[in-house]
Amino acid sequence: MMIVMKANATQSEVEEVVHRAVKHNVQVHISQGEERTIIGLLGDVRTFPQHEFLQLPTVDRIVPISRPFKIASREIHPEDSVVPLDGIQFGGPEVVIIAGPCSVENRTQLIETALAVKEAGAHILRGGAFKPRTSPYSFQGLGEEGLEILAEAREITGLAVVTEVMAPEQVDLVARYADMLQVGARSMQNYNLLHAVGESQKPVLLKRGLSASINELLMAGEYILSHGNEKVVLCERGIRTFETATRNTTDINAIPVLKELTHLPVILDPSHSTGHWQYVTAIARAAIAAGADGLMVEVHIDPAEALSDGAQSLKPERFAELVAQVKAITEAIGRRLVSKEINLPVQD
Amino acid sequence: MMIVMKANATQSEVEEVVHRAVKHNVQVHISQGEERTIIGLLGDVRTFPQHEFLQLPTVDRIVPISRPFKIASREIHPEDSVVPLDGIQFGGPEVVIIAGPCSVENRTQLIETALAVKEAGAHILRGGAFKPRTSPYSFQGLGEEGLEILAEAREITGLAVVTEVMAPEQVDLVARYADMLQVGARSMQNYNLLHAVGESQKPVLLKRGLSASINELLMAGEYILSHGNEKVVLCERGIRTFETATRNTTDINAIPVLKELTHLPVILDPSHSTGHWQYVTAIARAAIAAGADGLMVEVHIDPAEALSDGAQSLKPERFAELVAQVKAITEAIGRRLVSKEINLPVQD
Amino acid sequence: MMIVMKANATQSEVEEVVHRAVKHNVQVHISQGEERTIIGLLGDVRTFPQHEFLQLPTVDRIVPISRPFKIASREIHPEDSVVPLDGIQFGGPEVVIIAGPCSVENRTQLIETALAVKEAGAHILRGGAFKPRTSPYSFQGLGEEGLEILAEAREITGLAVVTEVMAPEQVDLVARYADMLQVGARSMQNYNLLHAVGESQKPVLLKRGLSASINELLMAGEYILSHGNEKVVLCERGIRTFETATRNTTDINAIPVLKELTHLPVILDPSHSTGHWQYVTAIARAAIAAGADGLMVEVHIDPAEALSDGAQSLKPERFAELVAQVKAITEAIGRRLVSKEINLPVQD
Amino acid sequence: MMIVMKANATQSEVEEVVHRAVKHNVQVHISQGEERTIIGLLGDVRTFPQHEFLQLPTVDRIVPISRPFKIASREIHPEDSVVPLDGIQFGGPEVVIIAGPCSVENRTQLIETALAVKEAGAHILRGGAFKPRTSPYSFQGLGEEGLEILAEAREITGLAVVTEVMAPEQVDLVARYADMLQVGARSMQNYNLLHAVGESQKPVLLKRGLSASINELLMAGEYILSHGNEKVVLCERGIRTFETATRNTTDINAIPVLKELTHLPVILDPSHSTGHWQYVTAIARAAIAAGADGLMVEVHIDPAEALSDGAQSLKPERFAELVAQVKAITEAIGRRLVSKEINLPVQD
Repeated sequence: MMIVMKANATQSEVEEVVHRAVKHNVQVHISQGEERTIIGLLGDVRTFPQHEFLQLPTVDRIVPISRPFKIASREIHPEDSVVPLDGIQFGGPEVVIIAGPCSVENRTQLIETALAVKEAGAHILRGGAFKPRTSPYSFQGLGEEGLEILAEAREITGLAVVTEVMAPEQVDLVARYADMLQVGARSMQNYNLLHAVGESQKPVLLKRGLSASINELLMAGEYILSHGNEKVVLCERGIRTFETATRNTTDINAIPVLKELTHLPVILDPSHSTGHWQYVTAIARAAIAAGADGLMVEVHIDPAEALSDGAQSLKPERFAELVAQVKAITEAIGRRLVSKEINLPVQD
Repeated sequence: MMIVMKANATQSEVEEVVHRAVKHNVQVHISQGEERTIIGLLGDVRTFPQHEFLQLPTVDRIVPISRPFKIASREIHPEDSVVPLDGIQFGGPEVVIIAGPCSVENRTQLIETALAVKEAGAHILRGGAFKPRTSPYSFQGLGEEGLEILAEAREITGLAVVTEVMAPEQVDLVARYADMLQVGARSMQNYNLLHAVGESQKPVLLKRGLSASINELLMAGEYILSHGNEKVVLCERGIRTFETATRNTTDINAIPVLKELTHLPVILDPSHSTGHWQYVTAIARAAIAAGADGLMVEVHIDPAEALSDGAQSLKPERFAELVAQVKAITEAIGRRLVSKEINLPVQD
Repeated sequence: MMIVMKANATQSEVEEVVHRAVKHNVQVHISQGEERTIIGLLGDVRTFPQHEFLQLPTVDRIVPISRPFKIASREIHPEDSVVPLDGIQFGGPEVVIIAGPCSVENRTQLIETALAVKEAGAHILRGGAFKPRTSPYSFQGLGEEGLEILAEAREITGLAVVTEVMAPEQVDLVARYADMLQVGARSMQNYNLLHAVGESQKPVLLKRGLSASINELLMAGEYILSHGNEKVVLCERGIRTFETATRNTTDINAIPVLKELTHLPVILDPSHSTGHWQYVTAIARAAIAAGADGLMVEVHIDPAEALSDGAQSLKPERFAELVAQVKAITEAIGRRLVSKEINLPVQD
Repeated sequence: MMIVMKANATQSEVEEVVHRAVKHNVQVHISQGEERTIIGLLGDVRTFPQHEFLQLPTVDRIVPISRPFKIASREIHPEDSVVPLDGIQFGGPEVVIIAGPCSVENRTQLIETALAVKEAGAHILRGGAFKPRTSPYSFQGLGEEGLEILAEAREITGLAVVTEVMAPEQVDLVARYADMLQVGARSMQNYNLLHAVGESQKPVLLKRGLSASINELLMAGEYILSHGNEKVVLCERGIRTFETATRNTTDINAIPVLKELTHLPVILDPSHSTGHWQYVTAIARAAIAAGADGLMVEVHIDPAEALSDGAQSLKPERFAELVAQVKAITEAIGRRLVSKEINLPVQD
């Protein structure tokens, strides 16, 4: 349920309504739009005294929230949310490109790849230090050593860093090194982890599970939002279907569906959603044409030697070509790539 | 198996090799590329005397065809095929837009819609006269009366017409009225129908089945090609997955995968692949960005009153907006919309 | 909509109501149960004068049919339907086992297999003469020659014969030779074919499409029923999912769901639903335990040499073991295998 | 890779080979069968000196392990594993029935349900204290209070208790109260959790993920086994497909496939795999007929009032009927229900 304030309501009038509302055993979520403020009421609203509030001169109307997700819904927050990260904005007019290797394998591999993707036009660096792997006998990531290498790459390149966190007890550690916490596809319904990143104040990149419905992705986002962290970026990365020509099936429909249902930024990972480097650039173009706010792309300086995901990783020169083609698409739809000058961090 | 001729082989030298080859109980398929000619050998090639042919001075090499589809494969036909239709070309640099209602409901509805989609920029008119419907109690199409209305719409607008054929015994009838025969998703593995349209000389629009793999779509195309009709255009129209937010899941990956595996033109139907008009334009943009050679879009002058597929049909004005946005994407990727001037047919 | 007659209504009273009803532009379907008769009203019932009929002393009540399938629904026909075939009954207390090769390959193969499956306990012989094959270059079946061999096998063994029909124009031909017409999975939504077998008076075995929902299977059955043929047996044969360990995923849930929704008999084909002979017997047991009315099993005298489906075909001795195990399950659930003595046909 | 010892090798001869093997940087897993002992070699075996070991008189042969799962594979452990739990054995000739509510809601609900399921024939009690819920606003379980109630139910009924653990840091807590730890479907690839339950010595019930392949389920089991806990029971609980008539699609094929690939016990949860109580008993019968070693069934004393999963919960009297029907199936396949007398725990 949400209370829509009148257009001219002042901040103190909003506060007064909130003050009254919280007495009725609900939590409130305030969404201050350009035109009017919406006060979302969360929790058990069955006994909320609507009539009392409808008589207040500053209240326009009270309407139900029809979706099971509340804070994530466009009903409660009609305008696009913008998630800022180190001078970059997800969800604004600019399109963001995250790139880097699947795993941090060693210092040389990561630093070289980081320099190469920056050169080619990436805005943020990705790389996994904790790796969820199907087999217990596969490379599981370098752990904290990988985080240290990522932090060094940020020092060298000026690129902000996003990396995966796999368990609640890792959140503090990862948050010390990374600028953005990634919740992977296999963890999308790891509710204890969602709770933990929700209590962190870091931006979160939430990837859709392999067989998660769009509704379930939004409910997972709602977990994070409801624990107080509103800096959530959603990521479509392909779903599991009967088709075996590709590793996954890119659910391109999810882009316009999500943009309709939620105000949160939405990006797409064409590397995982196709599983073959030959198709990554075409799907990257499609994602931006469909309205995605950004991309996450796997790039490796030597894909044939990658410890994971080599088949879907682009070489840096092909990634540069991807950036050029995506740039043309952004302009065709009236957007642009991130224009921030990414320099070496200021040295004291 | 295929015989790759030397680059300078003349036509008579090719014919001589073909002449020898057909003595060995195989069928041949000749693909004349810009650089060299490839002679595909179809049928049981296990006893074909390769050594004899390798000694011919005009033969460069003999290589296996690795895919189960042969004539449809890029191995045998490395260059893009172009399927001509009434001055329009599928598979060339120009992007083709087919539009029209799901069903021909009556003369007024079809003619008005045809005029509206022509005005908005469509190049070909669609409309169903024979309708495959899940329920025997639903509107099943106007049959031959619908075909007559389609032919009249062509007279009035100058737009070529594509319409569905559901059974082998209908092929002759439909071919008398239509410029292009559509094989629908539910009929993709109706082998008797594939045989019949293969023997027709009309261009065929072959839609992917709801749960057909990309490989199976190509095998269905191979049925048509192997019966002598090479004018086949493939159409991705969404696959069936667990996701229920949309009617189907657009398999956007299929576009670059098909363009890699086959030389046949590939288009996308965003109306069926999403099932909701709100998402059609975004997915139309994505399809062209991913490399599709065209679109098939459902448009109705009054979607709320449509006898079928109203929820996914665009109003003409929204379709005009789609054409404008798709035009911008075609230019961003170095293509263009069909430039043929579509006039009223010349009157005698 | 359906008119439920009072329990003591006589046949002439039913006829009187039917006589009145058909004046109102509806078709009627009469279901005479043990306790009472239900008159289904099909077509556009929006203007049907319910009040007039409710006042008749022989009418108990008028209720809507909530499902999109009408004649197939248990609402209109609460008791199980029984489909008789040559002294065997599908849908009664006895469980029916159909067995035989995927394809009729030659006389020797079919006759030997027929004798072997009869010996092992099969009640009906299967074998394909017209084969829907993914590749145009695969064995397409012997056609009418195959039908002749099937008829000869019936003469020799006394087993009734079921075989696939792929196109409307084949129905008469196939019906001359076969006792039961099979509509294959790829043809489940071939509506012209459903129409044609609906007009035949032969029993029909309707297989579920690879990605057909249970509702769509019932609608396909409704097509046949609505064209006047009520002898329809449904067959679950596995659906297409992401799992690749088996050829298809047996939708065992479909058995109790179908038994709840429809009065039609339901059997299961564990050969196609698993794709590997090792799993066929376990799934055959499961099908009967779940409530299926029968099985269709692929058996080949020499699976390694089969022209199609060798990997999923049982050798006769393994099939005999399947029959023994299934017999034990039938008894555990209070049913039994078909008890009809299958002898050589009486010679004139 | 695995070393197969000669049939007459003594335990000290096995130990000698193990002693030699571990010098070559591999881990060993010993499987002592009735006939012979197999020494599995895990880790990087590429440089393992096979020839040296083949010359030992007690070694029969060295063969590769073809599957990605090693300790879970039947190759390394040809005989069925038996997982003991409080006098009950999973994986032996007896079939085990676990029953109870989805969630522990309060003391009365749980104790009454526990008494009812014991009376009806259940062997183990289930009930969730920590609940993974799609919505952050749904009932999340009673937590430790729920564990205390479960422990009390065990005291009163004598039934062992299985309950879900959602996070690594909960393992110790849950293990203090429960007899068996459940890893839920959403956690099947929560590798940190698999690691933690692998280090516990409690039996683990590992449920298949909604879209996990059979191979991935076995790899998840391998994680637990490779961390030292061999008491793993696998549970099929339905997969996500396009079919919406049921909540999930029971992958009944998974039962014989798993029994072929692994020696671990396999049970089935027909409540989640169907989602509707009407279908639960039919699918329970099918599971046992297909070869499952047990069942997990949701039972609630008042399903209409359940805080979760009411639609799929059986009333106790229907559950008693399920037990009776399953008993008949067990006997038809030569097995029996657990025969252990479950009494009140011995009081000191």
